[in-house]
Amino acid sequence: MDFDLATGLAVLERTPRTLAEMLGGLPAVWTDATEGPDTWSPYVIVGHLIHGERSDWIPRAEIILARGTDRRFTPYDRLAQFRESQGKSLRELLDEFARLRAQNLATLGSWHLTDTELALTGEHPDFGAVTLRQLLATWVGHDLGHVAQIARVMAKQYRDAIGPWRAYLPIMDR
Amino acid sequence: MDFDLATGLAVLERTPRTLAEMLGGLPAVWTDATEGPDTWSPYVIVGHLIHGERSDWIPRAEIILARGTDRRFTPYDRLAQFRESQGKSLRELLDEFARLRAQNLATLGSWHLTDTELALTGEHPDFGAVTLRQLLATWVGHDLGHVAQIARVMAKQYRDAIGPWRAYLPIMDR
Repeated sequence: MDFDLATGLAVLERTPRTLAEMLGGLPAVWTDATEGPDTWSPYVIVGHLIHGERSDWIPRAEIILARGTDRRFTPYDRLAQFRESQGKSLRELLDEFARLRAQNLATLGSWHLTDTELALTGEHPDFGAVTLRQLLATWVGHDLGHVAQIARVMAKQYRDAIGPWRAYLPIMDR
Repeated sequence: MDFDLATGLAVLERTPRTLAEMLGGLPAVWTDATEGPDTWSPYVIVGHLIHGERSDWIPRAEIILARGTDRRFTPYDRLAQFRESQGKSLRELLDEFARLRAQNLATLGSWHLTDTELALTGEHPDFGAVTLRQLLATWVGHDLGHVAQIARVMAKQYRDAIGPWRAYLPIMDR
């Protein structure tokens, strides 16, 4: 499927509410659960999504749209949430994510992006030239990847509890 | 993590609202998308969850709790939704799922299950003896597996659209 703004936005605008329903008020045995050492809990993942709202998607789009001579993106800090989420409840993080996402989608909408602009490029630290269209499609895919990850992390907590059904639930061993 | 009723219920009661936020009103290019021939779209998956509410979890729990001499479960029909969802909109399916899940959780709550009852067994067509505790834990894991699947099916629609970022989004090739 090609990326287009309306279809992509339909996912981006739903993610905060999806996560609020999935995680809001859930016991900490679920929201602090991980897949093992150095893997992320739902709590950590929400912090990571917040960092993306602040530092990744819109700031990189702005670099592209500025059409400057230096269009290098700032490298993304994959561990920022361990610092930035400190002292915050999951409820606070979910609200913060919803607020930032709404702001960012308002910014995106205010640009009235044309196909020409969507074809402009920035310079990714690892990949080199990437288009604004690819950046925005990745924003969508990144959301969905982390929604799937949250569900998987939670599911695996019952890997043993389900007994022989483990053979029928591939998520338990993914 | 061991299964316990309150913790498991916290997930089961959230799934209908999670799916309603994730999928409600979403364009059909997302909700009818699949991972290829003979794989399921989000629309098909919601129908499958509905069939489980009608024919799997609570009916099997009832077989176990009846403590009869024949505790064999009815084999599960993994293709029922292709018949049963016919003519229904996704909105109707999401509402039907929410209604059936609420009914089933009310039934479950009315049983006031004890540890002794949770240890009772039924006979799974493939696995043989399984406990009520394992059945209920599987209900939770099954929900989460399908939430993850829905997110993955949707994400993969942008597998090409994200360009080089595919290398960083493992969900695209899972």
